Amino acid sequence: MKFPRFLIEKRLKEFLEEDAILGNPIPVPEVDVVAEIVCKDRGIIAGVEVVKILFDIINVRVLESLHDGEAVTEGDVVMILNGRAEDILLGERVALNLLSRMSGIATATSAMVGKVGGVVRISATRKTTPGFRMFEKMAVEIGGGDPHRYCMGDTVIIKDNHIGLFGSVERAVEAVRNVSFTKKVEIEVNSIEDAIKAVESGVDVVMLDNMSAEEAAKAVEALRMLGLRDKVVVEVSGGITPENVVEFASAGVDVISSGYITHSAPALDLSLRIRKSRPLRKPQFHHR
Amino acid sequence: MKFPRFLIEKRLKEFLEEDAILGNPIPVPEVDVVAEIVCKDRGIIAGVEVVKILFDIINVRVLESLHDGEAVTEGDVVMILNGRAEDILLGERVALNLLSRMSGIATATSAMVGKVGGVVRISATRKTTPGFRMFEKMAVEIGGGDPHRYCMGDTVIIKDNHIGLFGSVERAVEAVRNVSFTKKVEIEVNSIEDAIKAVESGVDVVMLDNMSAEEAAKAVEALRMLGLRDKVVVEVSGGITPENVVEFASAGVDVISSGYITHSAPALDLSLRIRKSRPLRKPQFHHR
Amino acid sequence: MKFPRFLIEKRLKEFLEEDAILGNPIPVPEVDVVAEIVCKDRGIIAGVEVVKILFDIINVRVLESLHDGEAVTEGDVVMILNGRAEDILLGERVALNLLSRMSGIATATSAMVGKVGGVVRISATRKTTPGFRMFEKMAVEIGGGDPHRYCMGDTVIIKDNHIGLFGSVERAVEAVRNVSFTKKVEIEVNSIEDAIKAVESGVDVVMLDNMSAEEAAKAVEALRMLGLRDKVVVEVSGGITPENVVEFASAGVDVISSGYITHSAPALDLSLRIRKSRPLRKPQFHHR
Amino acid sequence: MKFPRFLIEKRLKEFLEEDAILGNPIPVPEVDVVAEIVCKDRGIIAGVEVVKILFDIINVRVLESLHDGEAVTEGDVVMILNGRAEDILLGERVALNLLSRMSGIATATSAMVGKVGGVVRISATRKTTPGFRMFEKMAVEIGGGDPHRYCMGDTVIIKDNHIGLFGSVERAVEAVRNVSFTKKVEIEVNSIEDAIKAVESGVDVVMLDNMSAEEAAKAVEALRMLGLRDKVVVEVSGGITPENVVEFASAGVDVISSGYITHSAPALDLSLRIRKSRPLRKPQFHHR
Amino acid sequence: MKFPRFLIEKRLKEFLEEDAILGNPIPVPEVDVVAEIVCKDRGIIAGVEVVKILFDIINVRVLESLHDGEAVTEGDVVMILNGRAEDILLGERVALNLLSRMSGIATATSAMVGKVGGVVRISATRKTTPGFRMFEKMAVEIGGGDPHRYCMGDTVIIKDNHIGLFGSVERAVEAVRNVSFTKKVEIEVNSIEDAIKAVESGVDVVMLDNMSAEEAAKAVEALRMLGLRDKVVVEVSGGITPENVVEFASAGVDVISSGYITHSAPALDLSLRIRKSRPLRKPQFHHR
Amino acid sequence: MKFPRFLIEKRLKEFLEEDAILGNPIPVPEVDVVAEIVCKDRGIIAGVEVVKILFDIINVRVLESLHDGEAVTEGDVVMILNGRAEDILLGERVALNLLSRMSGIATATSAMVGKVGGVVRISATRKTTPGFRMFEKMAVEIGGGDPHRYCMGDTVIIKDNHIGLFGSVERAVEAVRNVSFTKKVEIEVNSIEDAIKAVESGVDVVMLDNMSAEEAAKAVEALRMLGLRDKVVVEVSGGITPENVVEFASAGVDVISSGYITHSAPALDLSLRIRKSRPLRKPQFHHR
Repeated sequence: MKFPRFLIEKRLKEFLEEDAILGNPIPVPEVDVVAEIVCKDRGIIAGVEVVKILFDIINVRVLESLHDGEAVTEGDVVMILNGRAEDILLGERVALNLLSRMSGIATATSAMVGKVGGVVRISATRKTTPGFRMFEKMAVEIGGGDPHRYCMGDTVIIKDNHIGLFGSVERAVEAVRNVSFTKKVEIEVNSIEDAIKAVESGVDVVMLDNMSAEEAAKAVEALRMLGLRDKVVVEVSGGITPENVVEFASAGVDVISSGYITHSAPALDLSLRIRKSRPLRKPQFHHR
Repeated sequence: MKFPRFLIEKRLKEFLEEDAILGNPIPVPEVDVVAEIVCKDRGIIAGVEVVKILFDIINVRVLESLHDGEAVTEGDVVMILNGRAEDILLGERVALNLLSRMSGIATATSAMVGKVGGVVRISATRKTTPGFRMFEKMAVEIGGGDPHRYCMGDTVIIKDNHIGLFGSVERAVEAVRNVSFTKKVEIEVNSIEDAIKAVESGVDVVMLDNMSAEEAAKAVEALRMLGLRDKVVVEVSGGITPENVVEFASAGVDVISSGYITHSAPALDLSLRIRKSRPLRKPQFHHR
Repeated sequence: MKFPRFLIEKRLKEFLEEDAILGNPIPVPEVDVVAEIVCKDRGIIAGVEVVKILFDIINVRVLESLHDGEAVTEGDVVMILNGRAEDILLGERVALNLLSRMSGIATATSAMVGKVGGVVRISATRKTTPGFRMFEKMAVEIGGGDPHRYCMGDTVIIKDNHIGLFGSVERAVEAVRNVSFTKKVEIEVNSIEDAIKAVESGVDVVMLDNMSAEEAAKAVEALRMLGLRDKVVVEVSGGITPENVVEFASAGVDVISSGYITHSAPALDLSLRIRKSRPLRKPQFHHR
Repeated sequence: MKFPRFLIEKRLKEFLEEDAILGNPIPVPEVDVVAEIVCKDRGIIAGVEVVKILFDIINVRVLESLHDGEAVTEGDVVMILNGRAEDILLGERVALNLLSRMSGIATATSAMVGKVGGVVRISATRKTTPGFRMFEKMAVEIGGGDPHRYCMGDTVIIKDNHIGLFGSVERAVEAVRNVSFTKKVEIEVNSIEDAIKAVESGVDVVMLDNMSAEEAAKAVEALRMLGLRDKVVVEVSGGITPENVVEFASAGVDVISSGYITHSAPALDLSLRIRKSRPLRKPQFHHR
Repeated sequence: MKFPRFLIEKRLKEFLEEDAILGNPIPVPEVDVVAEIVCKDRGIIAGVEVVKILFDIINVRVLESLHDGEAVTEGDVVMILNGRAEDILLGERVALNLLSRMSGIATATSAMVGKVGGVVRISATRKTTPGFRMFEKMAVEIGGGDPHRYCMGDTVIIKDNHIGLFGSVERAVEAVRNVSFTKKVEIEVNSIEDAIKAVESGVDVVMLDNMSAEEAAKAVEALRMLGLRDKVVVEVSGGITPENVVEFASAGVDVISSGYITHSAPALDLSLRIRKSRPLRKPQFHHR
Repeated sequence: MKFPRFLIEKRLKEFLEEDAILGNPIPVPEVDVVAEIVCKDRGIIAGVEVVKILFDIINVRVLESLHDGEAVTEGDVVMILNGRAEDILLGERVALNLLSRMSGIATATSAMVGKVGGVVRISATRKTTPGFRMFEKMAVEIGGGDPHRYCMGDTVIIKDNHIGLFGSVERAVEAVRNVSFTKKVEIEVNSIEDAIKAVESGVDVVMLDNMSAEEAAKAVEALRMLGLRDKVVVEVSGGITPENVVEFASAGVDVISSGYITHSAPALDLSLRIRKSRPLRKPQFHHR
């Protein structure tokens, strides 16, 4: 999923506005500087392309940078910037917040993918920070994960509460059959029985929710016995952690989705240091 | 800091739009239901007042609810909701995302305050999720912490990079002296010498940045020896964790600010369950 | 696809603003009136639920109304309104523009569905009026059609130009294989050979583009011979008109998508007549 | 009426966002391409200047293009584009939707103007697509028509319902006399008597509404007999079609306004074809 | 010109946001109060209807209020409010700023109208505060003045610089003849010769710019001698002050337009006093 | 306080939109011109940097300009512009409105600073034009004044009504003690007694509200006698005019805040004249 630049720009201006709504009270000296964003932690860097757009908005040049998805360790220089000191300091906090949060998510995702990537896909959920989902889904993809659906409407997912309202798996699937031939139908089930009914009803994806790895393995096996395993993508979700992810992978599922990677991954620590400065040759105010 | 309802509403509509931009593909049965938001974890609940406004936007009544700041444990019912099933499911994910993230921050803040609250204040930083700062600062306050400045402009804070640009602590403080008599001036220093210079220059707050607890204690002691301790608020920041916070508190500082509580606190786990439903008595579409 | 009310309201306020940006220059008498929206044409009414929200925004009560999807003919009363004359006249033009355009689309869609609905689905495209797609897709659904994807990102559709860039059907399909397990993959092809390759590559939907009905029938037959017909949804598009739609339906496809129904359907003629008025009992200005 | 570029840009970004809100799921090869927008129909092209701005927003160069208002026929190349394949495909659908709808309106307008343009003016109405009026009025002007008022407030127009509320033509005209000396006053009438009263009351424009061509001719003659014809602009509206427009023109009116040209003109068929591509010489991501 | 409530509300929320973007730092006691807005000056009150909408947005009841356009003097109570103390204090500053600026303009307008109103109309210009024009035009109307055009596009006004670009009055008028039959054409001239040419070219309004009252009288006389006086509205502008307005009125013009009334009228002094308070009976947070 | 360019641009586009929402009806000749903004009055120029950004948005070059804060007199050229005539005329009115209002404020501020600047600071208040505060505060700073707080939340200011609600100065100060260690606390008092209590309670700023100069002098003296004068910043406000400002300055206060400079300062008179023009060499439409 590639978001167009004008759309990212729009969000970045909101983020800058959040921090700069009262302006900058410090009369920063009018000097041209080189600055570095430096990593203080080990992980996967994410947000570099986004932050390049951020700095472009405020007239700061990115001289060099790592690529999204590269592994970093303490002391690595992520980006080298050049511009007016005032402009660099205007973007500093927002840039670091973007990089540290996105890299935290990419790092957690990549860790899970590293453990099970050859076998199953690691996927995100909609358990994201309100207003920041676009960037969190990007970070999951950078970390090697599947973004899962972006919003309530791009895939038809029947959840626990829906099944309760419709009365049964079959009736729920029936109800969504004509939503649109362009969308997949997924259903969340809690039991092997319901998993079987779901696949028989013709869903594209069945999600085993809050099952133990052992139960999930049994469900997959039951589908296989009935010749249904190949007709469906099997996803497992609920309580997956970096610790137990391998166990779930060996249950024979196709996808493991994890809320943890977006809602609880710790941020990656980064900072910005101004390296050298020289006086500006001429006032540059009214040039873009 | 109390944000007016119309401002919170505006943000919540953006959050709902993020999730519902393509609408809801599932034709949810037209029934009136009671639903519960249930806690699956131990912590401090935060976001209740915000989520009440969220549900009000989409016509869902909150029948009962806990208060922001209350301690919760697994199984606790945080809110009881009543409304059309379709409306409750429309708000479900956004409500849970708000509550789980805000509660995660309040829980982490409260844990630190619990350890050192009688001695020093725990404070947030600007290390927040872009676009979501208002809610993260609210959560810090609910957890008993000080929100610190909200944006670049409500307090004058001279950072490391500024001192480098101005050439010295004194020149930096001089440069901001006339910003406005309505704002405090804070300065971030790395050495005891600079801390002393800063206080002598008349700043309101001195922040000891990336010092060990031991160094911080020495800095405080140095100020005391010179009769400067009472002229200034002493803040310490950098590398504070739940593990070492007590050590820093005993260094004699006034405030400990922590990026951890906003950028790396794990979310609190919550879910929404529909309890009972009954047919709607009449179409309610065009009433607010 | 059901769009939440707050989202529709936001768009309707933009529409009202477009017409009322300079305000109303006429000092309309302060009277309470009953008004009717009357149909001057034969067709399928669409936009009623949307217009109810519109009038609610500007404080006009809808006393009675037809339902979206009902057949109407000349002289039929679509809605009966009650409120201040000034408010009704404020909404008049926007309400009529919404109803006449949406009804025109629903009427054209319904006409096609009527001809072939028992056999194949009629579907919209993205050939919509910029900024107004949400309402045009709603109208297609009201007319009995499938909305097709809402935007570039909710289904993965490989078009002619993509195949050219990737070099072949197979390489194009390969390239999108890992976009997300939650989305269907559709491909647009111009030849029977490409249709076969596409299905063999595992796409979910194959779209026969700009083929004659005869060619489409041959393509379907070819798939059937190879045992591929049941593995895929077959869509046909390009040059479909109300005149030739039956011919395409008999080609054995699953879905016929038509740009005509959104970009060239004539509007349904409607008007608003104020019926009776009486003086307002009391100033109502500051009540909602 | 010339709209400033920044205002058109704002609307175009909304249109692009509508289509790209979930991003582009296809990883388009990083190649530099030349593409053509080709006409598949006969008509008047409109929207070229608008689409140039659209492509400029997303970094696509327009190498050559026809001019708004030129006649086109099947096979004509409307624009030649150059840029990254990904960027061109991002703008494709929105560009085609703009051109095909605006050209459809310009074509219909021009057809009417061609029949009666030497005698009377053809004018639009406010019967436009909500949110898209600016572009539809532009298209009418490109087709040689008069845009009529843009919104409720730029001309004072007394309609049927207003006369009913005020009680008579004279009272209605009296009520708007002091709105502003900068605005014209127009009134819509259904009878010759009211047309005479209206002109005697001093209105600038009288609109004969829903009259037959014959009745309109009688109304014009009556005004002439009373020496009132030269004091007023006479507009006729209601039920005008390409078929009967000449008849109305010969009734001696000054302006014929038509809802048809904006609400029911069929779209002009256009498509975009990528012609040649070559690898990009260097990554261009962070340059505007 | 009456602006719809939803449009005024939108602007008022922006104004409230400007003042409340960081929230209210003071934990106002939870009490229900009655407050008064009191006048500290003599003038014409304007903005009352606008401020009623403001307080409605933030849940404050207006118990009593004067009407827009009433004369006030020191000590007069303009509005009596009732609501939570916190809500009233949230709106206080914005309400007072609206009332004091709008009343200042209405007072200045009314003073001019009082001097010459029986003879000529007093009119505003576009010399308004950016972003606040809607409210300043309203205030002029409340003060008895004509709002003049609202923006560049609702009347065609040929200014000095346009005449220079077109080469002559005649060519400029010719150039705008076909803009739209729905709009008046006005021209700004500096000499009697140009005034005559303008009227002969058929403009609707001629504006005598920066002439002395004596010169304006001569221009009017010249038009009268040529039988042109009744074919045109004569406006005079430039350097009009409350002191010399009578002199200009006696020059025989129809309209006197004044930048002074919007850009330099002093504000009317008003304040808000909380009168009585009592504890809130129950928490009201989540009710609208 | 320096506002970032992207934030100023956003507001300027809103201002341009206000004036150009219906476009420009005049088909301005396609010529390249040089134009001047000329001063017709004596004062301090302000808004130059803002207007440079404005003209940059619409593609007009600023060839030369004065600096914000320079003294100007009648006939001075403030800016020399170069660009398409159409673009310059598009920005003309908004540019002049910005410059004349901001310069009016800077002129009034500077006049006060000139009288008392060596002794006390002159400061603005929140008595600004809704929606335009950012520019009015900038103008105050350009005129040499202190902007005071920007919104309700960047400084904690306890006003008259708050004291009434809390019951006493002491209780009010107590209530805000824990808002945040990053913000100053100011209190508004009406009596010497309350001024003393306030300083003893530890506020950072005490504002003597609506006192005469004599009373203010007594309050300052009382604080001095009690050894409290150096613990606090003393501000005086209410009824300060250019006439009596010296008297207040001699009362020994630190800051004099004045609503007059933002709400009642008359605008500075400026105009724009096109000097020379030449045909455009080539169409420039689609280049930025």
